[in-house]
Amino acid sequence: MPAIDVIFSPALIPFYDLKGKNVVVIDILRATTSICVALSNGARGVVPVMTPEECMSYRFKEEEYVVAAERDGVPVPGFDIGNSPLSFTQKTVLDKYIAISTTNGTYTIKQSESADNIFIGSFLNLDALCLKLLRLNQDVVLICAGWKNKFNLEDSLFAGAVVEKLKDHFSFDEDASKAALLLWEQSKDNLLEVIKNASHSRRFDRLGIVGDTEFCLQLNTMEMVPYYNKGTLYGELVREIDN
Amino acid sequence: MPAIDVIFSPALIPFYDLKGKNVVVIDILRATTSICVALSNGARGVVPVMTPEECMSYRFKEEEYVVAAERDGVPVPGFDIGNSPLSFTQKTVLDKYIAISTTNGTYTIKQSESADNIFIGSFLNLDALCLKLLRLNQDVVLICAGWKNKFNLEDSLFAGAVVEKLKDHFSFDEDASKAALLLWEQSKDNLLEVIKNASHSRRFDRLGIVGDTEFCLQLNTMEMVPYYNKGTLYGELVREIDN
Repeated sequence: MPAIDVIFSPALIPFYDLKGKNVVVIDILRATTSICVALSNGARGVVPVMTPEECMSYRFKEEEYVVAAERDGVPVPGFDIGNSPLSFTQKTVLDKYIAISTTNGTYTIKQSESADNIFIGSFLNLDALCLKLLRLNQDVVLICAGWKNKFNLEDSLFAGAVVEKLKDHFSFDEDASKAALLLWEQSKDNLLEVIKNASHSRRFDRLGIVGDTEFCLQLNTMEMVPYYNKGTLYGELVREIDN
Repeated sequence: MPAIDVIFSPALIPFYDLKGKNVVVIDILRATTSICVALSNGARGVVPVMTPEECMSYRFKEEEYVVAAERDGVPVPGFDIGNSPLSFTQKTVLDKYIAISTTNGTYTIKQSESADNIFIGSFLNLDALCLKLLRLNQDVVLICAGWKNKFNLEDSLFAGAVVEKLKDHFSFDEDASKAALLLWEQSKDNLLEVIKNASHSRRFDRLGIVGDTEFCLQLNTMEMVPYYNKGTLYGELVREIDN
């Protein structure tokens, strides 16, 4: 039986061996939700980059890129869009490539490059993601992007939701996966309230960002699973085979 | 109102500013429990050191030292004792200094030296510790020693127990302190079962270590609060003032 483990901060990645494993990068508010939305709305690919400067350089590529950058919760001036999933509309992204740089999510993707596969998780594609992981039947490591290397609740709760879905088919002997599951079991019936009270949602309130938290907590609105291939995220539709 | 925060791994300490704060170092299985027991049993002081080599050098000091070292859960050969709280008997420690080096706990103490004060927490001195923190009425950071920089359950649960005790007198806005409290609330009624199933207790089982987990989960058996002063831990008795 393959194993499932959880890493609560990208700063802890160096203490794990990701080789031979499927990594899921989790940044619920908002990078990984936005990546799912972008690919679901027809973007050809999403390129995560470390800095806004590198991101802006994609504006001058031959191929047309939408450039998206966020720091400390707000869009970086001069970019097409920031990090809100509400910005990644079909009108903005259809048939285009996107370069994106965010405070936590894109950093975590780059830190995970030694994994066999990197997938992108959000509540919007939870079931499709879990179906993909089940089919691959390899060890899984769920990596929470957190906030500036600190623990955050919404990413950890999503990790717990994945552990719950997979726990009959994967072993979860490590304390972090047990803790994620305990947190999820304790919170899933009042998820919006718990996450609204968490630090990142309160940061949104201070910044006047409305609607993003509710959007990011929608469950299974898509069957799109983003995967990373040579620096770019592409989308794969994953669905149960009809009998 | 002062604030209370939790750090789930010593590898995350660099992302926090400990200046002006009271730190509690937590390594329930077993370093911080053993330090409490040693001082409660009459040791004059406990010197945490990084390596077994440095620890052994204390054998050659003018003052008589008991030398204690553990790595990967087992005593290091050649030392007087390892890391089991059952070894720190009055017969072994009374009126003596102790030098100790362990896999996680002593490392975490040394990483916390920028704090205003460092205290040592265990279930054995939970109430006395919380009383001390209440009296000081300064920001508190609870630091879990974890296991080789990874998250562990027993230290995080103890952090949650402290948050529960202090939550009417301290703010706890950070996600890590909320998660610790959620984990504690979810587990406190079957604490032994949860911790027996956690990875460190299972490591004890594999190593044939019997009784340590149960010993380390005893609640409020002492009023001793160890504090760190210039490289050495001393014990202070902290008790409610009788009216």
